[in-house]
Amino acid sequence: MSLIVKKFGGSSVADAERVFRVASIITEEYKKGNDVIVVVSAQGDTTDDLLEKAYEINPDGGSKREIDMLLTAGEQISIALLAMAIEKLGYPVISLLGWQAGFQTDANYGIARIRDINAERMRAELAKRNIIIVAGFQGINKYDDLTTLGRGGSDTSAVAIAAAMKADRCQIYTDVDGVYSADPRKVTGAKKMDEITYDEMLELASLGAQVLNNRSVEMAKKYNVELEVLSSIEPKPGTIVKENVKMEKTLIRGVAKDCNVARISIIGLNDTPGVAFKLFNQLAQAKINVDIILQSVGRDGTKDITFTTPLTQSKDAMAALERIKDTLQFKEIISDNDCAKVSIVGAGMESHPGVAAKMFEAIYDAGINIQMISTSEIKISVLIDAKYADKAVQAVHDKLIG
Amino acid sequence: MSLIVKKFGGSSVADAERVFRVASIITEEYKKGNDVIVVVSAQGDTTDDLLEKAYEINPDGGSKREIDMLLTAGEQISIALLAMAIEKLGYPVISLLGWQAGFQTDANYGIARIRDINAERMRAELAKRNIIIVAGFQGINKYDDLTTLGRGGSDTSAVAIAAAMKADRCQIYTDVDGVYSADPRKVTGAKKMDEITYDEMLELASLGAQVLNNRSVEMAKKYNVELEVLSSIEPKPGTIVKENVKMEKTLIRGVAKDCNVARISIIGLNDTPGVAFKLFNQLAQAKINVDIILQSVGRDGTKDITFTTPLTQSKDAMAALERIKDTLQFKEIISDNDCAKVSIVGAGMESHPGVAAKMFEAIYDAGINIQMISTSEIKISVLIDAKYADKAVQAVHDKLIG
Repeated sequence: MSLIVKKFGGSSVADAERVFRVASIITEEYKKGNDVIVVVSAQGDTTDDLLEKAYEINPDGGSKREIDMLLTAGEQISIALLAMAIEKLGYPVISLLGWQAGFQTDANYGIARIRDINAERMRAELAKRNIIIVAGFQGINKYDDLTTLGRGGSDTSAVAIAAAMKADRCQIYTDVDGVYSADPRKVTGAKKMDEITYDEMLELASLGAQVLNNRSVEMAKKYNVELEVLSSIEPKPGTIVKENVKMEKTLIRGVAKDCNVARISIIGLNDTPGVAFKLFNQLAQAKINVDIILQSVGRDGTKDITFTTPLTQSKDAMAALERIKDTLQFKEIISDNDCAKVSIVGAGMESHPGVAAKMFEAIYDAGINIQMISTSEIKISVLIDAKYADKAVQAVHDKLIG
Repeated sequence: MSLIVKKFGGSSVADAERVFRVASIITEEYKKGNDVIVVVSAQGDTTDDLLEKAYEINPDGGSKREIDMLLTAGEQISIALLAMAIEKLGYPVISLLGWQAGFQTDANYGIARIRDINAERMRAELAKRNIIIVAGFQGINKYDDLTTLGRGGSDTSAVAIAAAMKADRCQIYTDVDGVYSADPRKVTGAKKMDEITYDEMLELASLGAQVLNNRSVEMAKKYNVELEVLSSIEPKPGTIVKENVKMEKTLIRGVAKDCNVARISIIGLNDTPGVAFKLFNQLAQAKINVDIILQSVGRDGTKDITFTTPLTQSKDAMAALERIKDTLQFKEIISDNDCAKVSIVGAGMESHPGVAAKMFEAIYDAGINIQMISTSEIKISVLIDAKYADKAVQAVHDKLIG
């Protein structure tokens, strides 16, 4: 007998028909003799609908405590409905709110971190052979107030339960049937992977593959929870995410693009010590995320610094830089919001130096100019013009994965 | 400084505009220097919408625990929105779910009774000078599971808080501005009362005046909580409900009609001991509420028994009687679903025997036949044909209240 944790997103339970589809996936697992704990998000657009109600009351958004009080009602509705569907199918089931399942968090409303899971209640319900339906995305703080875990929180809830209960597997059901070497809707020849490491998954997720929330993958890695990404529609094995995967021929796991990128260049900075520090310190204080950084070699006593930032933070970054224009004494700022980052990810990459050259060749053959380059142990990223992003992904995929 | 408990129903907070209207009533009270605890129901049609979702999943209704899990999300949404509106107006406020406010109930999902209120959290929030918004209708049982208090539960929540916190007054806001001597939409000359006793209010509520939930009035009487029924739209004093009210000229407080009545006659019963017991025991086992009972004088060894029951239970009552037809050996059952009960209520009535005669006279003058009569210390009810109900109420009101 195994303990399986399953997580279903909001679209999987958006209406009665889909609730029953999910219910039957759950009862099929239970029928095998396994213990099943299910984490579910709020139905369909519930969270957006609730936020809209809040903005009607207060366009500035209201206090985060009350927003969390409001939003946690969403999962409460979906767990009750899913439990009712399982009851209707004739299986023993109980729904639990985040706090009933023992989710204790810090008091950072909206972005709470899980402190501990008091698994007593869940253990008692499993002992009664109940299927447990847990409200994802939510917990309780030491003041007995409801909190939410922030974006992708339900994935995190599922992994945290799997870790706390030492589950045999944590299955994340999505609208795709696994992790692909590239976006299968856009890249011909994109291949589904049977297995992938946590680190590869992390790089792919942060590159916009958007299959799994990063925080949940980090937690899975930390507690060594075996994840599976699989389809809530087609009943077939998905992609396993774990620490060590069997070696495969292909070095490159996947190719991803990220269009939420802006490039900002500061031209004519004094070529003196401390300039980069002052620049990026200012950005850090303004809470701007900086990704790739490129500094030109100094010439005529000046140098240029170029960096990328999420497109959504581009305006704030420009404003922050303007505020220190007098201190830094640079000539001008140039920004480009039409960029895309194309990246290849693969754990075996570092021992094979030819990979980067092959990637650049593919992009050159496609007639695309590379603006910036960034590398890590398991990733190579290039910045290019946004309009060539899909073309570049296909070219790189053809060349390196095939 | 006083402590005031205010209760607002679902229609009072149905949209953002109404939420702000309620918020300003609350902050006006707070500005006077008073402590304010507010109980609020789910917005507008939320409860019905949630129940509809449940029936889509399971037309039989699902388990009561999961229904309560589902429904309690409704008040969670409304307390958060109301708290946000008060925040927006610039006042300190905190929303509390039933369990956070300390509502401990028994485990009868859907119709839970309040066992105790642990008022610690509410006291702490008042000490911080916070306005408290409490989710009505809900509590928690000893298993840490959410429960609902059943119909009219938010009134009960408000009175329970007022009792536990020894509030100076419990104000129930409605869409009418007080308790009237008859339904002011239908009876010309209906008068608003300044004060009314608990017992009078109980009789009026059970007669379909539907201003206050009976259970909440009973609780108010038990704990001597001074109630006020007032308008959420017009800012003026309403009707106070308390133990002793100042004597007024009129003996009769109000005239009410109840159209949720069916009359059932069992004809040709054996005129032997134990017949009435067997009959009403059978009805009790089928959980049929019986109101007025009339037994004919025996003749030729048989007698007839007639009783009234809520229209909604009429079918079940008939079925229950059919099941004991052989045991009881009666001739036939006749039912009439087109009845109405018209009643007058007044605490001073019992010492003035002429009141009943005046009532019957008014009905006679209106040309209406009386089918059954029932009296208590503070009430006289007559059963008449439903189509004459409004006419009878007006005639009795004209004669006795004027």
